[in-house]
Amino acid sequence: MGGPELEHLIGLFAKLPGLGPRSARRIVLKLLRERETRLLPLADAIRAAANTVRTCSVCGNLDSRDPCTICAAPSREAIICVVETVADLWAFERAQIYRGRYHVLGGSLSALSGRGPEDIAIASLLARIADEAPAEIILALSATVDGAATGHYLAEKLKGFDIPISRLAQGVPMGGSLEVLDEGTLATAMRARRIA
Amino acid sequence: MGGPELEHLIGLFAKLPGLGPRSARRIVLKLLRERETRLLPLADAIRAAANTVRTCSVCGNLDSRDPCTICAAPSREAIICVVETVADLWAFERAQIYRGRYHVLGGSLSALSGRGPEDIAIASLLARIADEAPAEIILALSATVDGAATGHYLAEKLKGFDIPISRLAQGVPMGGSLEVLDEGTLATAMRARRIA
Repeated sequence: MGGPELEHLIGLFAKLPGLGPRSARRIVLKLLRERETRLLPLADAIRAAANTVRTCSVCGNLDSRDPCTICAAPSREAIICVVETVADLWAFERAQIYRGRYHVLGGSLSALSGRGPEDIAIASLLARIADEAPAEIILALSATVDGAATGHYLAEKLKGFDIPISRLAQGVPMGGSLEVLDEGTLATAMRARRIA
Repeated sequence: MGGPELEHLIGLFAKLPGLGPRSARRIVLKLLRERETRLLPLADAIRAAANTVRTCSVCGNLDSRDPCTICAAPSREAIICVVETVADLWAFERAQIYRGRYHVLGGSLSALSGRGPEDIAIASLLARIADEAPAEIILALSATVDGAATGHYLAEKLKGFDIPISRLAQGVPMGGSLEVLDEGTLATAMRARRIA
């Protein structure tokens, strides 16, 4: 349908997260119908991002400058929030509730996937802590088996630094209906209950 | 977050059909993480499609050749299936149940949107029919008010040609549970019932 260039483009879109052949066809048709306003600008933007965006050599964030905008900002507090992915970092930035710095591990320890401490950015975190001596280290890891394992490993490694280590609170999410919550969350929320 | 190039790219993805800010961020992060295998190939494929894919001057299909692969194929029967969009044409091709030719109107007549006969490819259809004298014309239009209006208008215009004009059957879709079907479909299916 439509020649090799079109099929190739649809195939690449179809493999992006959350997309499939149907949505890829819809997107490509839209792009081709609006060539000047969508197709060419998207090609240019991808090229520009490919040329400028790099992984920050300090924290692992993605930015068109290195060190990234956050690492370069003198106003950011000397606290390090350790996250698994850049997506997690962005989620905190969108929430606008944290004004410290970050460290992106690039994943979690995983016995199942065979990811050990040398496969994620733990060595650079330890070097950074020794160098920057932050006032606090926040372990903002996923509430999964792998996230918990990573948190335990890091807490153990960070013991020697004499710096307060904290974790995110776990419980009922905002707007969460108890009826649909899983038992693990309910149990955690019950155990961690606070006097109102 | 991440500088202007990154935000611009996410903004463009977020405006594609079916995507929003959340899915656009996910896609862009994936692209940047897999720069060599995803980001650069996608940029190249968009550029290649932009440079090669054109609207077929005969039928309105999109293809990297003009006339398109379908129009250029001598094996295709001399029947014209009139569709509203290239997406509809592709749907028939995927189903592999039709070996004739197509004509893409590029939309339907719409009183509400103010689209008249001169806004869609009706003149070129009439010229083509006069020229090619097809054995049949299939009006494969949406089962909507606009699709029906377009079908009536075309049937009227095509009366003079002495060529059989057909329409798609309407009824219960395959795998369709009657319980969830709308009343319009049920009524059409009942009226058009056939002796088993």
